[in-house]
Amino acid sequence: MIDYKTPLADILFALKHGAGADRLGHWDAELASDVLTHAGAMVDGIIAPLDPIGDMEGTRLVDGRAVMPPQFVEAYRQFKEGGWPGLAVDEEYGGQGLPHILASALSEMLSGACITYQMVLSLAHGAMRTLIASGSEAQRKTWVPRLASGDYLATMCLTEPQAGSDLGLARTMATPVDDGSWRISGGKIFISGGDQNLTDGRIMHLVLARTPDAPAGVKGLSLFISPSHLPDGSRNAISVVRLEEKMGMHASPTCQVAFDGAQAEIVGAPGEGLARMFTMMNAERLDVAVQGVGLAEVALQRSLAYATERRQGRAGSGGSGPDPINRHGDVRRMLLTQMALAQGCRAMVMRTLVDLELGESPALMELMTPVCKAFATEAAQETASLAIQIHGGYGFLREYRVEQIARDARITPIYEGTNGIQAATVAGRVIRMDNGAALREFRAEVEGAAAQATPAFAERLMDGLAALDRASAAMLARRDLGLTATSYLRLIGLLAFGAAWSRLEAAADFAPDPGRIRATASFVRDWMLCEIHALAERCEISAELGSLPDNVFEL
Amino acid sequence: MIDYKTPLADILFALKHGAGADRLGHWDAELASDVLTHAGAMVDGIIAPLDPIGDMEGTRLVDGRAVMPPQFVEAYRQFKEGGWPGLAVDEEYGGQGLPHILASALSEMLSGACITYQMVLSLAHGAMRTLIASGSEAQRKTWVPRLASGDYLATMCLTEPQAGSDLGLARTMATPVDDGSWRISGGKIFISGGDQNLTDGRIMHLVLARTPDAPAGVKGLSLFISPSHLPDGSRNAISVVRLEEKMGMHASPTCQVAFDGAQAEIVGAPGEGLARMFTMMNAERLDVAVQGVGLAEVALQRSLAYATERRQGRAGSGGSGPDPINRHGDVRRMLLTQMALAQGCRAMVMRTLVDLELGESPALMELMTPVCKAFATEAAQETASLAIQIHGGYGFLREYRVEQIARDARITPIYEGTNGIQAATVAGRVIRMDNGAALREFRAEVEGAAAQATPAFAERLMDGLAALDRASAAMLARRDLGLTATSYLRLIGLLAFGAAWSRLEAAADFAPDPGRIRATASFVRDWMLCEIHALAERCEISAELGSLPDNVFEL
Repeated sequence: MIDYKTPLADILFALKHGAGADRLGHWDAELASDVLTHAGAMVDGIIAPLDPIGDMEGTRLVDGRAVMPPQFVEAYRQFKEGGWPGLAVDEEYGGQGLPHILASALSEMLSGACITYQMVLSLAHGAMRTLIASGSEAQRKTWVPRLASGDYLATMCLTEPQAGSDLGLARTMATPVDDGSWRISGGKIFISGGDQNLTDGRIMHLVLARTPDAPAGVKGLSLFISPSHLPDGSRNAISVVRLEEKMGMHASPTCQVAFDGAQAEIVGAPGEGLARMFTMMNAERLDVAVQGVGLAEVALQRSLAYATERRQGRAGSGGSGPDPINRHGDVRRMLLTQMALAQGCRAMVMRTLVDLELGESPALMELMTPVCKAFATEAAQETASLAIQIHGGYGFLREYRVEQIARDARITPIYEGTNGIQAATVAGRVIRMDNGAALREFRAEVEGAAAQATPAFAERLMDGLAALDRASAAMLARRDLGLTATSYLRLIGLLAFGAAWSRLEAAADFAPDPGRIRATASFVRDWMLCEIHALAERCEISAELGSLPDNVFEL
Repeated sequence: MIDYKTPLADILFALKHGAGADRLGHWDAELASDVLTHAGAMVDGIIAPLDPIGDMEGTRLVDGRAVMPPQFVEAYRQFKEGGWPGLAVDEEYGGQGLPHILASALSEMLSGACITYQMVLSLAHGAMRTLIASGSEAQRKTWVPRLASGDYLATMCLTEPQAGSDLGLARTMATPVDDGSWRISGGKIFISGGDQNLTDGRIMHLVLARTPDAPAGVKGLSLFISPSHLPDGSRNAISVVRLEEKMGMHASPTCQVAFDGAQAEIVGAPGEGLARMFTMMNAERLDVAVQGVGLAEVALQRSLAYATERRQGRAGSGGSGPDPINRHGDVRRMLLTQMALAQGCRAMVMRTLVDLELGESPALMELMTPVCKAFATEAAQETASLAIQIHGGYGFLREYRVEQIARDARITPIYEGTNGIQAATVAGRVIRMDNGAALREFRAEVEGAAAQATPAFAERLMDGLAALDRASAAMLARRDLGLTATSYLRLIGLLAFGAAWSRLEAAADFAPDPGRIRATASFVRDWMLCEIHALAERCEISAELGSLPDNVFEL
């Protein structure tokens, strides 16, 4: 059994040939390779060993404070010392100013090695982006360096018991005080890293709260910074009421947090909360997609290792004993699916991140952010479940640590906007914006991939685009989208994933293992993309299913 | 949150209109209803409360013995007192002689209420069938009454560390001794109920072992009864070496069992082991399908309860506050999928069990046993995962107990022959037997359903049969089946599931909730069955993917 090994060559191949990272003006391929080589050694050596400890021991609430296993604290100390928190932060804030895509590659590695470690750290990146985009100069100068150095971590305090997908129901109140600051009171739930002892509990909370006399709904929400510690070093009036007991992610402290008149400062103006928070939410959505890639990768690695060693049955190799199970066709189907999802999602998500960094196609980003979030997190579910299946009965045992991947991964289609919310966003809003700009840019992307693809793959992609056109027409014509939106989102995801694979196949000569790239690309083309027609057919059926009587859905 | 409530009206509807239970000569609808009403009350009152206790406390190994939570012991005492273990056992063995299908309906209820309780008991049924089919008169008269009374439970000791799917690699040895009995030595793993304290550890182990000078492979295996206790009341030389730590099913003792010269008697003749064991393995396969139905049902129930209560967002109902989430289209999609899978798999599996009891279509049984096992266990995965998704962030918390369903259910596609093995059996053997008798009988079944169906559903079924014909021709023509077998099996499963739904729809007037049956049937017809074409397309693609180089699949 292996913990995790950074797939350095695969990542570099995906960055260059899948994501087109060299389109970035400040791209230095050699530097990128050096940085990721160092990152890989650090992740494999220091972070991967945390994962089983985190699952078994979890994080505990001791005297009102979240206590992570001591190995996590020591690993973070080294991580911070190595300067990793500020990898992609501008030098003016004390960071190293490298491309964001390298921080995302590191994020993938951390997710594969130990998703709970990645999770506790991840919100700091979105918080820095939010401050840089929306904070005052004082806020930027005070907080970004603290986050970039790793002295502080961050949270995103949105959810309340009655306000999950529907943030407009949030009740947490912010009241202004004479010195221009605010006091926040209310309860937030599902706050990842709401407390921890990696930074001695030093946390910058970003909080959505309602100001006095604000209108109901999301327009009444404002964004606040509420720090764990006050300037005099004492603690702000923020406490952890409880840690949730979860299916997985045991080391990630998921906190119920109470604000009792906690001091805070506003970011932007009152009522701008959701708009300001969107920077962070979109960054987090793509980071969750990156988590999906990391989880798919580690599921693949453990499966390949097991399937190479485990011998059962004859597969016609002519040897005297049983063959390794990676000779059996059904196991090959499962391994191919995992390889396709891990490497294809990596290429697709990385390309989206590079496009985001280029900043040239905002409409495409509106589409690809939910597409990547949903498709890559579904990929994590599938690869993890296949890893269990490949391990047979051993897959159900805790010691083989593939069931852990499935348990940890199960939150990814839920948090940062459920995949159903991502689908509703795309079907209800994104494809209708700017006279269909998002779909036009998406079509150009897929056509661009087809232009470089092998003829067989190009044909599949053009056929997929025709199916998408039929499905889009049906979606744009109907009012009731709920029942179909998820199939529509998956259709776009499969096509983007197919386009990513066609690019990898076209560059197979430069791949670390050209044979594997070509074999997997054929599998994607002839096998996985078959699903597109069924998805399009679902989108095209009449809306009658959407108008079913309410009592059908009651207990 | 609800534990579990026996869906009595749905089960009776499925028995009559889905399964055609009245085709059984000794069927008495009123008696069946009475028996299942009593069973439901017992299951809801006594068994369902065990489930969270079992998950939290699990079964522990104490002084070499498996100790289940005390509530399980007390529940079993009442269960036994109520005569439930012998429900479908012939009166000559002390049972109540009711149809087997009623025992299966009880099995579904137990699986929904507390799958670990069901699991510990379930092997006794297959063991009784095996003894009645293969045992000597003395073996039948000694052992069946002990099992029927519930004084004993049973195990099926097949797997060894090196011999999982490939039983031919089993090394456990059986040596004859002068008195005609045998001594067994070796280690078995993954033995469900290998020890427990429900029957004070009184267990009849059915063991596959190799006799001296037996040929290698499965032909050298023989079947033995090795009891936990010897006639003088002392313990046989059988010990539990360890209990596995698992993803789920925490209360079910999964034992590593050591036989150290344990006394045993042979069932049938040497070398007949696997053939004799097949009675039990087929019974268990269908019982695992029944487990899938029970798990799908409880996942549906918790989802409906939550989706009726939880309010988020507006769904156009015009009320002043947020709407219940069961008004949102994407939640409806998930609930419809769960309703379709729970009720449709119930009808499909029950029909197969009734056909088995009728004994008139052995070729169809060879096909439908693996189809039901794979399709219903996949349905359990999907309904459980959807239950988590419907619950949003709460679904990831242990206290809402939908993640438990997912963890418990994850073993069902693995044990009693992985779903990949079921697929290989169908594609490699079953459809080739007797000049295609199985497919002919299956086609007649689907055509029979179409003849009673609404025109729209009949058209879908006939279209599905055409797709099956194309896929079958491709499967029969190729030699390398591994990559495609699972898609082929799912195609047959979807078609059988569709046929089951067409029968339910045709009888909707008699359903407890005709509106729900009609709505769900439309969803199955227009939505779920779309997948058939993609599956057929996969079966039809060239075999090139099957001949990929070996090193593609190595780490």
